[in-house]
Amino acid sequence: MQNNEHLFLRAAAGESTERPPVWLMRQAGRILPQYRALRSNFPDFKAFVKTPEAAAEATVQPVDELGVDAAIIFSDILVVPEAMGLNYEMIESKGPKFPTVIRSQHDVDALITGEDAASKLQYVYDALRLTSKLLNGRVPLIGFAGAPWTLLAYMVEGGGSKTFSEARRFLYTNPVAAHALLQKITDTTIVYLNAQVQAGAQLVQVFDSWAGELTPEQYRTFAVPYLQQICNGVTGVPKTVFAKGAWFALEDLAELPCQVVGLDWNITPAFARARLGENMVMQGNFDPCALYDSPKSIETGVHEMIRQFGPGKHIVNLGHGVYPDTPLDGVRAFVDAVKNYRY
Amino acid sequence: MQNNEHLFLRAAAGESTERPPVWLMRQAGRILPQYRALRSNFPDFKAFVKTPEAAAEATVQPVDELGVDAAIIFSDILVVPEAMGLNYEMIESKGPKFPTVIRSQHDVDALITGEDAASKLQYVYDALRLTSKLLNGRVPLIGFAGAPWTLLAYMVEGGGSKTFSEARRFLYTNPVAAHALLQKITDTTIVYLNAQVQAGAQLVQVFDSWAGELTPEQYRTFAVPYLQQICNGVTGVPKTVFAKGAWFALEDLAELPCQVVGLDWNITPAFARARLGENMVMQGNFDPCALYDSPKSIETGVHEMIRQFGPGKHIVNLGHGVYPDTPLDGVRAFVDAVKNYRY
Repeated sequence: MQNNEHLFLRAAAGESTERPPVWLMRQAGRILPQYRALRSNFPDFKAFVKTPEAAAEATVQPVDELGVDAAIIFSDILVVPEAMGLNYEMIESKGPKFPTVIRSQHDVDALITGEDAASKLQYVYDALRLTSKLLNGRVPLIGFAGAPWTLLAYMVEGGGSKTFSEARRFLYTNPVAAHALLQKITDTTIVYLNAQVQAGAQLVQVFDSWAGELTPEQYRTFAVPYLQQICNGVTGVPKTVFAKGAWFALEDLAELPCQVVGLDWNITPAFARARLGENMVMQGNFDPCALYDSPKSIETGVHEMIRQFGPGKHIVNLGHGVYPDTPLDGVRAFVDAVKNYRY
Repeated sequence: MQNNEHLFLRAAAGESTERPPVWLMRQAGRILPQYRALRSNFPDFKAFVKTPEAAAEATVQPVDELGVDAAIIFSDILVVPEAMGLNYEMIESKGPKFPTVIRSQHDVDALITGEDAASKLQYVYDALRLTSKLLNGRVPLIGFAGAPWTLLAYMVEGGGSKTFSEARRFLYTNPVAAHALLQKITDTTIVYLNAQVQAGAQLVQVFDSWAGELTPEQYRTFAVPYLQQICNGVTGVPKTVFAKGAWFALEDLAELPCQVVGLDWNITPAFARARLGENMVMQGNFDPCALYDSPKSIETGVHEMIRQFGPGKHIVNLGHGVYPDTPLDGVRAFVDAVKNYRY
């Protein structure tokens, strides 16, 4: 088992491996009965996230249960806005809600940032330290944060949205305040991710979940420069950028000082490779819905996907977080199909 | 004014024009105070849609109020599933809901199709005839339908969804029933759109709103062949296909026997032109959120977009339906910016 740690980090470094490593976005969570049992001890999601022992246990569960090649710390991207002074509620089966939203320069000015904000996230660092101990080197530990545009989207919109029209309107009508907010989020995120690395994260992933809502020009203006700062500012570990829906920005992502780019299931490996260049490691991109299919079909599909990516510079994942109601047999078939593959 | 009719249809036929024509998806609807006044006379959305006099009046309102170069019949893509035997409710500010959903071959078998289904949509044909009379040749009248995949998505999922995971799961786990359902929708849609043409529609647009949820391979399997049948089966008018989010399928759309392809705001004109070929007319693709900006910024942005599309083979529209809370001044600035442009 000890080689699993090397497999994931070797692949992230672009080294050749005997097979691609595999993990799943949202692997620590509702797909596992162990998680649901653990979660039932807490009154709400946020109480769970803020209890390092629980977060650490949830992080390790998929390693024990599924045999994935990496663990990702159980947390939430919205802890950063909260640390900056914008509280949120997580409403069961509906999603996050910010009772107060950002709509002006004045609102942005009131937020704290950098070390002052990141120091409020001690519970995440504690969870990482505990997890490192529990993992004891079995597999590497991934830290993460939301990308600045995606966090702005929630902070301005006030929650999830079909169109994020309030957030995008803010970019058009108040670009100065938008840039100020993005900078504050970026400054906080750099301190936050470096502290995660200090606490044991061996790779960090930045999730730009709402990248696909922007025009190519907006993405270049309001997202890429801040991703650039984060990739430059976080040191000592490889970095992954997953910009969902940002097929149109792959040439921009290719220029980032990161090692891995995540892909959703709309993008073919050939399309991405042509734009990312030969050296970028690609992560993805099995359709999460395909895990509802039979184990045999999943194996066939996974092997076909690995062949399409070609040998090396590939980490297997889904094209999006695993859906909470995915049958465990489907998830197992996905992981096992990767583990029984050889280049 | 009589030349406006020629402008839109000339552009759709790929002929050169002095400026691009302009209309907005969802121009007949909540953005107009006249619409809201008319709508308040009806207990619910569906009662409104099923009253030809009201639908005709709503269709003409944006021509009178905004001066757009085409009218699109006020209706709903979900009238087709309903005509096939699957009733739905439109829940105020939440969206559509199907109390019964399709999950098996047996469910598909129970649906009616073709002429039997399309004959239940007399109220749409009546609305088109009334509208033609009211328009009296001022601008052309557009008919429309939902694409088979998008209608399947609603019929299986039961309503809107962030992921359409039930609908996509159906494609993986029951492809035979999925194809049977897509064929039934297609057969109905061909009769329906031809009847719209008989009733006065001078161009028909097919909306594939959830195209972006599929993998490129799924789109080629479950969407394109049915779009092909529809484009072949509807005769006598030009056809527009708008597959939202289907940037990855532009080469497939290029092969369809349609004249116009709609584009969302993620896609640059150069990217689309390289894949659609020189002859396809492109429709789009201003960001609906940009209409919250100042009239001056809107004009600058619209003119820049028209320059990027280049002279000819372009119909100006948004990249998605206009958002219901868009200020009327923004909509006017958008239309006026196109109308004061000259190639």
